[in-house]
Amino acid sequence: MGPSVHPVDVLRVGGSTSETRHDVAAVEEPLEIRLEGAPFVVTMRTPGADRELVAGFLLAEQIIEGPDDLGTIHYCTDAGGRAEAGHYTDGKGATEAGHYRRDGEPAANVLNVTLTGEASARAASVLARRRMVTTTSACGVCGRQSIEDLISAIRAIDSVWSVPRSVISTLPDRLRAAQSAFEETGGLHAAGLFDRAGTLMAVAEDVGRHNAVDKVVGSQLLMDRFPLSERILFVSGRTSFEIVQKAVTARIPIVAAVSAPSSLAIELARDAKIALLGFVRGGTFNIYASPERIEL
Amino acid sequence: MGPSVHPVDVLRVGGSTSETRHDVAAVEEPLEIRLEGAPFVVTMRTPGADRELVAGFLLAEQIIEGPDDLGTIHYCTDAGGRAEAGHYTDGKGATEAGHYRRDGEPAANVLNVTLTGEASARAASVLARRRMVTTTSACGVCGRQSIEDLISAIRAIDSVWSVPRSVISTLPDRLRAAQSAFEETGGLHAAGLFDRAGTLMAVAEDVGRHNAVDKVVGSQLLMDRFPLSERILFVSGRTSFEIVQKAVTARIPIVAAVSAPSSLAIELARDAKIALLGFVRGGTFNIYASPERIEL
Repeated sequence: MGPSVHPVDVLRVGGSTSETRHDVAAVEEPLEIRLEGAPFVVTMRTPGADRELVAGFLLAEQIIEGPDDLGTIHYCTDAGGRAEAGHYTDGKGATEAGHYRRDGEPAANVLNVTLTGEASARAASVLARRRMVTTTSACGVCGRQSIEDLISAIRAIDSVWSVPRSVISTLPDRLRAAQSAFEETGGLHAAGLFDRAGTLMAVAEDVGRHNAVDKVVGSQLLMDRFPLSERILFVSGRTSFEIVQKAVTARIPIVAAVSAPSSLAIELARDAKIALLGFVRGGTFNIYASPERIEL
Repeated sequence: MGPSVHPVDVLRVGGSTSETRHDVAAVEEPLEIRLEGAPFVVTMRTPGADRELVAGFLLAEQIIEGPDDLGTIHYCTDAGGRAEAGHYTDGKGATEAGHYRRDGEPAANVLNVTLTGEASARAASVLARRRMVTTTSACGVCGRQSIEDLISAIRAIDSVWSVPRSVISTLPDRLRAAQSAFEETGGLHAAGLFDRAGTLMAVAEDVGRHNAVDKVVGSQLLMDRFPLSERILFVSGRTSFEIVQKAVTARIPIVAAVSAPSSLAIELARDAKIALLGFVRGGTFNIYASPERIEL
C-alpha cells in the first residue's frame, strides 16, 4: 500500500444486510507552502511528490519560470523551527496538524522554498500585491485587480506540433496502467504527460486534479526536462480553466481529458492555441479547441 | 438551455471519421467576493445562485453564523463602481473579465457583501489576520498559523438524529431527477439537501463540488430555513475535507456521496459525529463514520 492510500474500516450496507469491511481511502492532508519563510498558500493534497507539487504550483503561479529559479525546497518538520531537508516521510517531531495524520508517521506538511534572483523579486512582488489586494480598494475598481490577474498574461503557444489521432485513443489505458491508488479507492485523480508516440513520461495522483497536474509538470521541471512543448497532458476527470491555465504556463500544446471541459477552459485553450480534447474514451473523443494539432 | 450551460461546437472524432457537432459545456466564470468593499476571495464558479453561493461560503468560512449577520449582497457591475442589486443577468456595463463571457450578456462577476454587528468585526479580524499571515513569521512557527486555522473550531454535532437506510438508497435518483445541466454536459457537480423522508429541499449545480454545497446551504440560509440539523447533504462525486467541513459549520448531521471520501473527510466526520456515506449507488453504500445515524 502506497503513501497515497490509508486503511479504513467501513460498514458496507446492501439490500437488507450490512458487514464491516477493510477498505482504503485516498489520503488528503494540508500542505503549507512558504516562500522564503513567508506563508504563501495552504493546499489540501495527497502526500507524495510534494516537492514536485510545489515546483509545478510555483510555475503555474508564475513565481518561477524554470529550474534555475528554484533554490531549495525544505520541509519544516522540526518543532523548534529548524528547516530540514527530506522526503515527507523523513519528518521528525510533531506538527500542529498532528491529529490529522496516520499514527507513527510524522507528517511533514510545511515546505519552505528559497528562490534565486528574479524569482525572489517576483515572489516579493506577489506577496506585496496580495497584501495590497487585501487592504485597499473599494467597489470603485470592481472586478479589476483580482479577476484581471486571473486571466492576464496569456501567451499563445505558436509552435507547430501535432500528434496522430491514433495516439490519443491509447492514452486512457496507458494512464490507467500506471495508476495504483486510483483503482483501489476510486478517490484519486491522475495526470500524465505523454510524448508524440504515446509514451508515458510522467504520472501523478492526487485528491485534487490541479495538484496532479502540478506534480507531473513539477517533476519535469525538477529533472530539468523542460520545455514541455512536445508533450500531451492527459487528465482523469474534467478540465477546468485552472487545468488549461497550468498547461499555458508550462507551454504544453495539447490537453486531453476523460471527461468534459468547462466553457472557460475551452475559451482559454482557443486563445492559447492549445488543443483541448474531452471525453477521450473507447476510441472516440471530442476536440474543443485547436483541432490542427490532431492529425485526423 | 439554462444559464449554467453554454453552446459550443466540437469536432467529434471516432474510428476513422470526424464530424462537427453542436454541443454544450458547463459554464465556468470567476466570481470575486468583497466584504464591505475589501477583496476577500476570487472563486471559479458556474453562474446562477450567486447570492446563495456567497451566503454559504461566508458561513463555511465562519464569517457569518446565520441570516441575521448578512446585510446586503450586491453586484458591482457598473464601470464607475456604483454598487447595484440584481441577478447576475442584470449587470450593466462591461467588466474587466469581459472577454470570458458570452456575448450580449454582461457578466456580473463581483459581489459586495455588507455585514452586521459581530460579523462585521469577524470579517475585519479575518482580513487583518490574512494580512498578518502574509507578512509575518518565518519557519519558527512552521505549520502553526495556517494549518491550525484549517482544522480548528470543530464542534461535534451532538444531536440524536438518524434516517432509515431505505431513504439513503433513494437519494441518487432523486438528485438526478432534479438536475438538468449535469445530464446535458457531464460537466457539473450537484448537491442536494434532503429531509428524513428523502424529500429534496434544495438542489444546486456547479463546476465545483464545494460551490454546489455552498449554494444549497446558502439558499436555506437566505430563506431563513436554518437550522439544518434534520437534513442530509448528498453530493455527486467525491467527498473531501472541505465538503465535510462545510457540513460541520452548517450543522448537517449526515453527508452522503456517489463516490469515495478522502482520509481527512473520514477523520473529520468521525470527530464531528457526522455520518459519512460513500459509493451510494444501486441500493448499496458504505458508512465511513457515525453509523448510528443510519437505521439499519
